[in-house]
Amino acid sequence: MTAICPSRRDDARATPVTGPAAASSDRPLDPPAAEVRTAVTVPLRFPDGYAATGRVMTFDGLVDGREHLAIGLGDWEGALARAAAGGEAPLVRPHSECLTGDVLGSERCDCGPQLREAVERIAETGGLLLYLRQEGRGIGLYAKLDAYALQDAGLDTYEANVALGHGEDERDYAPASQMLRAVGADRIRLLSNNPDKGAQLELLGVAVDERVPTGVHVTDANARYLAAKVEHTDHTIALPDRA
Amino acid sequence: MTAICPSRRDDARATPVTGPAAASSDRPLDPPAAEVRTAVTVPLRFPDGYAATGRVMTFDGLVDGREHLAIGLGDWEGALARAAAGGEAPLVRPHSECLTGDVLGSERCDCGPQLREAVERIAETGGLLLYLRQEGRGIGLYAKLDAYALQDAGLDTYEANVALGHGEDERDYAPASQMLRAVGADRIRLLSNNPDKGAQLELLGVAVDERVPTGVHVTDANARYLAAKVEHTDHTIALPDRA
Repeated sequence: MTAICPSRRDDARATPVTGPAAASSDRPLDPPAAEVRTAVTVPLRFPDGYAATGRVMTFDGLVDGREHLAIGLGDWEGALARAAAGGEAPLVRPHSECLTGDVLGSERCDCGPQLREAVERIAETGGLLLYLRQEGRGIGLYAKLDAYALQDAGLDTYEANVALGHGEDERDYAPASQMLRAVGADRIRLLSNNPDKGAQLELLGVAVDERVPTGVHVTDANARYLAAKVEHTDHTIALPDRA
Repeated sequence: MTAICPSRRDDARATPVTGPAAASSDRPLDPPAAEVRTAVTVPLRFPDGYAATGRVMTFDGLVDGREHLAIGLGDWEGALARAAAGGEAPLVRPHSECLTGDVLGSERCDCGPQLREAVERIAETGGLLLYLRQEGRGIGLYAKLDAYALQDAGLDTYEANVALGHGEDERDYAPASQMLRAVGADRIRLLSNNPDKGAQLELLGVAVDERVPTGVHVTDANARYLAAKVEHTDHTIALPDRA
């Protein structure tokens, strides 16, 4: 029932890439311009009753051909206009898809609560949520669940990806930068605990004026996962002591 | 901002298919056996506080190569054993991915509340949730949002798909039948309002002992969508009168 095939890969990428250095050698730092394909207004209501309105945008010309979304929340157009006039940059969260966390509320990670928090914080101030189709830090859903099985056998979240023949983090923020530039957000406040996201976006031509940390969403099931993020990739997460 | 390209298609399928008749001409009625690839236990907690435990399973051998999931909930193994001994069949919901509804709580459809309801009802009795990667009734996320733009111009949910060059419903339950048979659920109680799902599964070798309707999740934004489901494809949804 739990056979693992370490050599199997779920997407067409030939070479694992990790972080901004890999991005710089793997693709141009100035990705081509994308443009908005369709924009529709969608009323949103979460299971806890919180409601907002999103302007959901799709794009033509994204470099990886995947169906990423940008979602304008709150007075996002006003926030872009204020930034263009030299004011504060809009709040932006690039959120990488996590089916188990986002859809099913998995407590093995903190993706679901981070997404829910991001929607509300962005709606309050006006900005954009980017929903990036790079599941499992870019290795895909099936490989992520293979990695979960390895984690159950003792590896941490990064070690498990590597044991499966993947990079520790294969995410690529080039499409995120294309979407931001397509809507005129070439200067942002980045809602993230992950310093690598900011570094990659800067390399891709998006100015990160400030990095705004998210809340800490710790559970019994994700404490080890969050600790690995802090210890291994310098995420700014204030975890309680784990005695 | 809202340009539509009717001839653009988002996946590799050459021919739109609709319902069981199309399934019968388009692919074998007896899809090959699949097997479980990985199974991991995932604690789940939804934003409203409801918690459950899922046994999340991936598969080798699914006919379309997509990353579909089966999620065992409650005493799903006991339910399968009881069915194998001639008792009541397990409750099963095949849920087709809807990023806007499942992840963001879009009120343009009823997918989010249906998914949340399904998890709880299945967990109570023991059974399986199938999470099927066939977004937008099979046309894909970007095409679905193109269709939303057409709906904003007056078309209903089926007309919009056709106007984009797609079938009204391109979903295919062959992978669902493969997953069910891989875990030993060749006889089910189907949690669905959609008669076509039951008909397709029967053609694919899964016995549907009973079809159990879901609740009605109507909002101002989805009333027209739900009415089209009732009027056009005989969904069993008891809608309030729309005066």
